[in-house]
Amino acid sequence: MQLTRYSDFSLRVLIYLAVARAPLSTIEEIAAAYGISRGHLMKVVRHLSALGYVETVRGRSGGLRLAREPVDVNVGEVIRRTEENLALVECFRGEGRCPIEQACLLRRALHMALDAFLAVLDGFTLADLVSRRRAPLARQLGLQPLRGPGEP
Amino acid sequence: MQLTRYSDFSLRVLIYLAVARAPLSTIEEIAAAYGISRGHLMKVVRHLSALGYVETVRGRSGGLRLAREPVDVNVGEVIRRTEENLALVECFRGEGRCPIEQACLLRRALHMALDAFLAVLDGFTLADLVSRRRAPLARQLGLQPLRGPGEP
Repeated sequence: MQLTRYSDFSLRVLIYLAVARAPLSTIEEIAAAYGISRGHLMKVVRHLSALGYVETVRGRSGGLRLAREPVDVNVGEVIRRTEENLALVECFRGEGRCPIEQACLLRRALHMALDAFLAVLDGFTLADLVSRRRAPLARQLGLQPLRGPGEP
Repeated sequence: MQLTRYSDFSLRVLIYLAVARAPLSTIEEIAAAYGISRGHLMKVVRHLSALGYVETVRGRSGGLRLAREPVDVNVGEVIRRTEENLALVECFRGEGRCPIEQACLLRRALHMALDAFLAVLDGFTLADLVSRRRAPLARQLGLQPLRGPGEP
């Protein structure tokens, strides 16, 4: 059981933008900071933009930035919207291939487990992920962060 | 995010054996009941046997049966032992490829979410999955179940 790279990279892009606090960041910078392919990131950023998490500014000095405050980006919501397939097992997809689908309580147990998984993530915002760690995250991403109020 | 077919089939085999209550069932029967490949099931059954969930009896009139009472088969434990990869994201595998691994709180949030997921499944045994549904499950699997005490 794994999240797709797509969700993983989506969250990493949001973390980068929340830590950077620069007016604009570029896909090249983010790709270099994480050591991941620019091509992958292009798709991720396009989707994050369509979902309203990221704003892109075109042109030579263009780039991207968060479209919302980090406190308004819910981690559970991001996972729900970027993870293409939360169908833990075949029968979640409603294809009706498993003969015991109607009577099976495993399905119900797995739905309860998935709800519990997402409920934990619904308790976190992007701000929770970065606020107390901005300085070390920025160092690890090779960024010079603007300092927030009260931050060392 | 999906469970592997391996975990899914493992649970289906255990459900079949718990519903069948026959002295011995065969891989052929189980494969036919679920419409899945015999080859896949062979591997699954070998592993369930190595894990102590299933007993196999060799010989012409051989077959397989549960090695434990259904009430002693915990669903969370089965998932933990059959799901090869519970590393939701790259950094769970400890490969150290993500530069923000040390400061990242996303990892902690995902660990909490996974713990919540498994905790729900720890609350179910194989007996919970089948006891109140034995008759419809048996019908759907093409089985004639032995009736338990107090069951219709």
